[in-house]
Amino acid sequence: MELLLKKIEQEGIVLANDVLKVDAFLNHQMDPVLMKEIGEEFARLFSEEKITKVVTIESSGIGPGLMTALALNVPLVFARKKKSITMQQDIYTAKVYSFTKKEENEISISHKWLEEGDKVLIIDDFLANGQAALGLLSIMEQAKAETIGFGIVIEKSFQDGGKILRDRGYRVESLARIQSLKDGQIKYFNEELTV
Amino acid sequence: MELLLKKIEQEGIVLANDVLKVDAFLNHQMDPVLMKEIGEEFARLFSEEKITKVVTIESSGIGPGLMTALALNVPLVFARKKKSITMQQDIYTAKVYSFTKKEENEISISHKWLEEGDKVLIIDDFLANGQAALGLLSIMEQAKAETIGFGIVIEKSFQDGGKILRDRGYRVESLARIQSLKDGQIKYFNEELTV
Repeated sequence: MELLLKKIEQEGIVLANDVLKVDAFLNHQMDPVLMKEIGEEFARLFSEEKITKVVTIESSGIGPGLMTALALNVPLVFARKKKSITMQQDIYTAKVYSFTKKEENEISISHKWLEEGDKVLIIDDFLANGQAALGLLSIMEQAKAETIGFGIVIEKSFQDGGKILRDRGYRVESLARIQSLKDGQIKYFNEELTV
Repeated sequence: MELLLKKIEQEGIVLANDVLKVDAFLNHQMDPVLMKEIGEEFARLFSEEKITKVVTIESSGIGPGLMTALALNVPLVFARKKKSITMQQDIYTAKVYSFTKKEENEISISHKWLEEGDKVLIIDDFLANGQAALGLLSIMEQAKAETIGFGIVIEKSFQDGGKILRDRGYRVESLARIQSLKDGQIKYFNEELTV
């Protein structure tokens, strides 16, 4: 996706060999026009699939997830990392370890917002080691919902989340696949995509 | 806003005399069409104000905030409740006590995403006692940004956040103002708005 690759090129910052900071447009400041284009692209990619629900995790997945849900005209459900006092029971849960925040979260979704037979598109801002994706998959299995595929804004192909999901037979569509961040250089999986 | 009042009427649940659960369409499952209409309404209300940035707090503010930013064609910035390892310095912070989660959070925004002279519209899903709004105001003051006003999806007028902000001279636009949740009944501030 050209606009996304341009944004990464112009505003992304490589902080270490495995950290790409995109807080200029994705996960702290957010570019709404880019989010809308991302949502429309995921909707286009999965347009044949009769998706009934888009699922993501708070917080950074909400932007791309909401725009995808709007383009597909289905509800968005975002998994919660903390339970509020209005959400204590009848929930599906899974444990997710975050390497960037160095902590384990229990994510949860209310029974009410997933139905058996739901055809779910899971959206997230990043795919790295796949912990969040596996947590959401576990919740989909508990709910007997069908996971149709994953829409990922930025995949770090040098970590193994993408491989794990594809090896399990899931369709994973990543709008930017980064092969390497070595020496502060962003190399894409398909070099011809580099802007 | 008619669509919002209908949604509250049909899908909102009064849990106690002061808790309105709207996880069917606003803060767990999210209705993207409603979010888009909310964003367009806030943009219309503040269309004369030359807003340069929309600011909110993760997570439930992101949906309405992003749609408002899209309609105004300006960036969204969402305050973080936890610092990631990519965000440790050069941040404005404020303490916010959450009555629904019974905990104090330190919210933060990077210096980079607020500029002196920014004309900021603050968006949030709920306004109750005003703690989150006051925390964001403190950050705007630290950044020397100008707070033009507040766009609130649901204001609980029987708590004092709205009064505090209006007494300080801020413009507060709430799409649903709830006067009372007593005995499981939702009463609006302007009864003629009730659907």
